[in-house]
Amino acid sequence: MNQTTTRTIAVIGGDFIGPEVTAEAVKVLQAVTAPGSFALQPYDLGATAWQRTGEVLPDSVLAELAETDAILLGAVGAAPNSKDIPSGLLERGLLLRLRFEFDHYVNLRPSRLYPGVPTPLAPSVTEGKEIDFVVVREGTEGLYCGNGGVVRAGTPHEIATEVSVNTAYGVERVVRDAFERATRRRNKVTLVHKHNVLVNAGGLWRRVFEAVAAEYPQVTTDYLHVDAATIFLATDPARFDVIVTDNLFGDIITDLAAAVTGGMGLGASGNINPTGAYPSMFEPVHGSAPDIAGKGLADPTAAILSVALLLDHLGLAEEAARVEKAAISDLAARTGQQRSTTEIGDAIAAAV
Amino acid sequence: MNQTTTRTIAVIGGDFIGPEVTAEAVKVLQAVTAPGSFALQPYDLGATAWQRTGEVLPDSVLAELAETDAILLGAVGAAPNSKDIPSGLLERGLLLRLRFEFDHYVNLRPSRLYPGVPTPLAPSVTEGKEIDFVVVREGTEGLYCGNGGVVRAGTPHEIATEVSVNTAYGVERVVRDAFERATRRRNKVTLVHKHNVLVNAGGLWRRVFEAVAAEYPQVTTDYLHVDAATIFLATDPARFDVIVTDNLFGDIITDLAAAVTGGMGLGASGNINPTGAYPSMFEPVHGSAPDIAGKGLADPTAAILSVALLLDHLGLAEEAARVEKAAISDLAARTGQQRSTTEIGDAIAAAV
Ligand SMILES: CC(C)[C@H](C(=O)O)[C@@H](O)C(=O)O
Ligand SMILES: CC(C)[C@H](C(=O)O)[C@@H](O)C(=O)O
Repeated sequence: MNQTTTRTIAVIGGDFIGPEVTAEAVKVLQAVTAPGSFALQPYDLGATAWQRTGEVLPDSVLAELAETDAILLGAVGAAPNSKDIPSGLLERGLLLRLRFEFDHYVNLRPSRLYPGVPTPLAPSVTEGKEIDFVVVREGTEGLYCGNGGVVRAGTPHEIATEVSVNTAYGVERVVRDAFERATRRRNKVTLVHKHNVLVNAGGLWRRVFEAVAAEYPQVTTDYLHVDAATIFLATDPARFDVIVTDNLFGDIITDLAAAVTGGMGLGASGNINPTGAYPSMFEPVHGSAPDIAGKGLADPTAAILSVALLLDHLGLAEEAARVEKAAISDLAARTGQQRSTTEIGDAIAAAV
Repeated sequence: MNQTTTRTIAVIGGDFIGPEVTAEAVKVLQAVTAPGSFALQPYDLGATAWQRTGEVLPDSVLAELAETDAILLGAVGAAPNSKDIPSGLLERGLLLRLRFEFDHYVNLRPSRLYPGVPTPLAPSVTEGKEIDFVVVREGTEGLYCGNGGVVRAGTPHEIATEVSVNTAYGVERVVRDAFERATRRRNKVTLVHKHNVLVNAGGLWRRVFEAVAAEYPQVTTDYLHVDAATIFLATDPARFDVIVTDNLFGDIITDLAAAVTGGMGLGASGNINPTGAYPSMFEPVHGSAPDIAGKGLADPTAAILSVALLLDHLGLAEEAARVEKAAISDLAARTGQQRSTTEIGDAIAAAV
């Protein structure tokens, strides 16, 4: 008989709807795996925790997280226009800190238009089309590195800068990951950048992309400026298989990608360190949605689909497939009648 | 009797479909104004001109352009993956050079879903809604300033940077322009940025925005992260009136805005220097579209609507309205049967 390995999963519910959707994700995780497969370790982090403790991410917690096998995160953050919390404090202090400390260089964001799911796109765009693509967003460089500053703040002579830092090392590993994924899919990779304006960073991305592409003759390649990419996401999303892009462009196009494939309630993501040197982190693309918190209105599907990505990352492909299948069936069976967060979680947990 | 003032308009057709749509725009300009109102001065610039002469924008031409009353531009650029022309050469050497030299700090991009125009959005998103907004994109700062560099190019140790430069001076004047426009529209301004990650630049934009907003108590304000803005452009574009944003975010969201309101064939733009110190430049948002060039397939409507913006800028509001009205009627009367570039131009010119 096999000895059961217990894996430790850090669970960060976060703020507002974060804990609500995470509870359902955990329910599904437990339903799909044998008892004892996972030890779940809750961590109380986010806006509320910061307001109580004054700390965003204590070093001791970071050290503990580093020892886990994976992190499941709900959503952190106060209301968008909240004045209580300095802008960027949680984003940079928690989310981005984890992505950077744990070298999550592959930010994986699949988008599929599942049967029965309402979309803001016209039938002429979606009908008879298979919309199923994945964005491989670079997660550790670009404009997200926090390199920039302000002089003469608050005066009429203020200057504020932000620096996008891109390295051959960082670009190559994520581009390579995208090509590897493409070979397990439909063998197509689209590079999204803006090399006609951002000639330095764009030149690097383009050269690395072409060099890696030469090693994958079976993969078709394509290039789009980021502005054109948004057009195709709205008018012909079926054209995409794997998209690889930088941190900021990836942020922008994955929200749009989620919107056109059924909304933020369905967008799952993985912040992945493919080397396994650090734990990877799985989270819905959506935020903490203060406006709908506490009402049972949040759709936990994105968090549940993030569990599928987590399972897949940990080598439990069969379990991952069962979670995704159960979520798809649940989506297809929706009648338009509103169910609560818990009802959706229960239904999917029962089906896996 | 009034003396007629003749205004000089520089006409840069550019490449591929550029000259095709520009010819129709000129036709409409001439039809709507009295003979002798405009002296049209053609300039041969763009990819083809560069290939022939080796020069992108000679200083002597720049000096001549500076003396004109306005510039009408079609589109410049080679095919996106063309290797003949270094990436960014024309964009930075011609388009952006003109925007920067002539201090076009207001890049104005109106989006309206005109009756009868097909949209990629579902009826649930558009039906019964008035979709009519304008993006005021900053045109002279941000990541477009060409500040950045490369070290160890082409080696595994390459580092490439791009610097976004934002000044209180530059942000305030464009934010103020957006509020002024809002008072002539539906009194709402949405700031689009990403201040939770780009805390330096975002902080500056946000503070300036709030300070200017305080002077316009009748204007409602709103803030969206750029990623969330793309979601609303796909799911609820009717919520927008005036959007103000930086150069790169403006580039991205205006392509998406054009896509959801009928496509690149309709997106007009003005690169405006509101002080009048330099000529403003009017151009369709679309590119030179090498794939459809020479076939009479390009829709000149965006170029024609850019003429309406030009006329409005030069104080000819009545003529501008006639051009827009004729273009709207033409759009409403479309039957789905393909007409040529010239046929559309002729029809609108006859109607003004
Ligand atoms: C919250 C924010 C820092 C984050 C990002 O910009 O990456 C979010 O938008 C996302 O896409 O995960
Ligand atoms: C061609 C390019 C430099 C330009 C830009 O990025 O501004 C274009 O996309 C636009 O929007 O006018």
